[in-house]
Amino acid sequence: MSDQSGIPDAYTRAGVDIAAGNEAVYRYKSVLGAWRHPDQLDAIGGFGGLFRMPGDAKRALVASADGVGTKILIAAELQRYDGVGRDLVNHCVNDILVVNASPLFFLDYFAVGKLDPAVAAAVVQGCANACRAHNCALLGGETAEMPGLYAPGHFDLAGTIVGTVDVDAVPQPESVEAGDAIVGLPSVGLHTNGYSLARALIARDEWTKPFDGTTFADALLAEHPSYYDAVRAIQKVATVKTMAHITGGGLLENVPRTLPSNARAVFEQSRWSVPPIMAELVKRGNLQHEERYRTLNMGIGYTLVVPLTQAQTAAEAVPGARVVGWIEARTAGEPQVVVHPARA
Amino acid sequence: MSDQSGIPDAYTRAGVDIAAGNEAVYRYKSVLGAWRHPDQLDAIGGFGGLFRMPGDAKRALVASADGVGTKILIAAELQRYDGVGRDLVNHCVNDILVVNASPLFFLDYFAVGKLDPAVAAAVVQGCANACRAHNCALLGGETAEMPGLYAPGHFDLAGTIVGTVDVDAVPQPESVEAGDAIVGLPSVGLHTNGYSLARALIARDEWTKPFDGTTFADALLAEHPSYYDAVRAIQKVATVKTMAHITGGGLLENVPRTLPSNARAVFEQSRWSVPPIMAELVKRGNLQHEERYRTLNMGIGYTLVVPLTQAQTAAEAVPGARVVGWIEARTAGEPQVVVHPARA
Repeated sequence: MSDQSGIPDAYTRAGVDIAAGNEAVYRYKSVLGAWRHPDQLDAIGGFGGLFRMPGDAKRALVASADGVGTKILIAAELQRYDGVGRDLVNHCVNDILVVNASPLFFLDYFAVGKLDPAVAAAVVQGCANACRAHNCALLGGETAEMPGLYAPGHFDLAGTIVGTVDVDAVPQPESVEAGDAIVGLPSVGLHTNGYSLARALIARDEWTKPFDGTTFADALLAEHPSYYDAVRAIQKVATVKTMAHITGGGLLENVPRTLPSNARAVFEQSRWSVPPIMAELVKRGNLQHEERYRTLNMGIGYTLVVPLTQAQTAAEAVPGARVVGWIEARTAGEPQVVVHPARA
Repeated sequence: MSDQSGIPDAYTRAGVDIAAGNEAVYRYKSVLGAWRHPDQLDAIGGFGGLFRMPGDAKRALVASADGVGTKILIAAELQRYDGVGRDLVNHCVNDILVVNASPLFFLDYFAVGKLDPAVAAAVVQGCANACRAHNCALLGGETAEMPGLYAPGHFDLAGTIVGTVDVDAVPQPESVEAGDAIVGLPSVGLHTNGYSLARALIARDEWTKPFDGTTFADALLAEHPSYYDAVRAIQKVATVKTMAHITGGGLLENVPRTLPSNARAVFEQSRWSVPPIMAELVKRGNLQHEERYRTLNMGIGYTLVVPLTQAQTAAEAVPGARVVGWIEARTAGEPQVVVHPARA
């Protein structure tokens, strides 16, 4: 992606081409639009795919596939293997949670150039731990040894989660209206996005150096949390109209995915704090406003839209949750997300 | 893996460590054995994981994750992108077919160093085509651009399939008895296994050269077929007691996965033909008997155990299917698979 000046932004300089990603998504739509299984249901925002439960029209299966991105390269370099499994499972849990689904089972894909059984077991152990925490079966997986594809010490990890939801309980973006509030759940760091940028801005030899009371390594590898319990707690005290998991694309691209086109989300960044590791990336990369909120989660890992009258109650149901913005009417052509920056 | 002489075999020389793979599986068992979801059902041979259908105790969901191995490196080098998607989906379909499951939906994971939208779309198109051929929804997927993990032009592709089966229709290995026959379905080549060995034995500059009326490239990239229709056709005319998908590990490791411990499978290799590409690998690598049948499918892609009286009818139901062996009683300590070689 380039800004209007034609100068490539920091993320592009780090080797990630967001325009190519968008072009791929556009082409996928054409591929997938050619035929659709009659039991596929409309997906909301694309966080998870919905499929009618065989034999039960009132329920749906919800599935999502994901990876952990180049966070894996930092984990591999530092030989810290167990966290990436939890990162991956929690990411997947959060994705299907957007459509209100609870996990049933998960399968991993672990690929290496040269298989080290201890490393493989540590990675899978991380997956197993996070699965168990969600009463989710680790139902299977594939371990692939592929010399020539992965460099020594490198590996990739991806996974697919399948959950279930009552069709009536799937959030309805159309219920969102001007005046609703947005509750934000805090992020603990980059989660699983922005690592190509982070690796470009924070050199390998700095990773073990002190940063913010810990080390860069700890800050970079902070685990992607699950928002499952937090969302369920808020749903007990408030009507949740729509939700978003803030992953690649940040607030700017993820929040609109579950909003009706006549609504826009307005965030007020003074209402939450930006994690130090993200402030550091902003500073080092001289990231401009748009780039910050499109590449990084900037401190908000998950958003929930609730009626204004329930907003405070909702936020108080979960430690760290805050009212971070509101919904306004949107006219065609206006951006669907606006973030008012905090005063410096 | 080494043979008894201590000389590493061809597969080890190609960079794939089967002993490390077995050690990883052993460790996974310990990880997975620590906790099991109450709705997980016993998996038969590990081709697919079984999970009780929510709300319907008589049905199960069956899931399997897989990749296409280093076949991907040949496809990438030759810029032939659409076949690997079909390879992957068909591989997954065959895996869950072993537990008699029919596909519901599939999700892909496509990872690259630098995203080329046309390549990504071609790969996903291949997945979509094979999904549609099985009335299987392509329900989602993840495209990951990971500079630093994948070399330019390289990519990885993995996927997860979810299907369903009536619990009563899951094959029962215990029903297998001495005297039963084994019907084999022909392979068209390496399918998705043995490619690290193949790449070690057939150099890049030979790939476009003529081989067996075509080219090495065509022979190497011959697509992994789906055995779905063939198996369903045989099930209409015969009682299928147990089945195996012949993937990595060949006849020697895959057939025992769905046999009771008191049975052994005896194959007579004169009953089928070995595809020329495999004969070529055997010759070039001087692959010994055990190595051939543990690394390559050697011409049999899928096996079905049927009563002897139905064997000929079963084989005649599908073009190319043949009775390739039989079941004998096995005493402890005997190998579970024996392949009698054809006379040269």
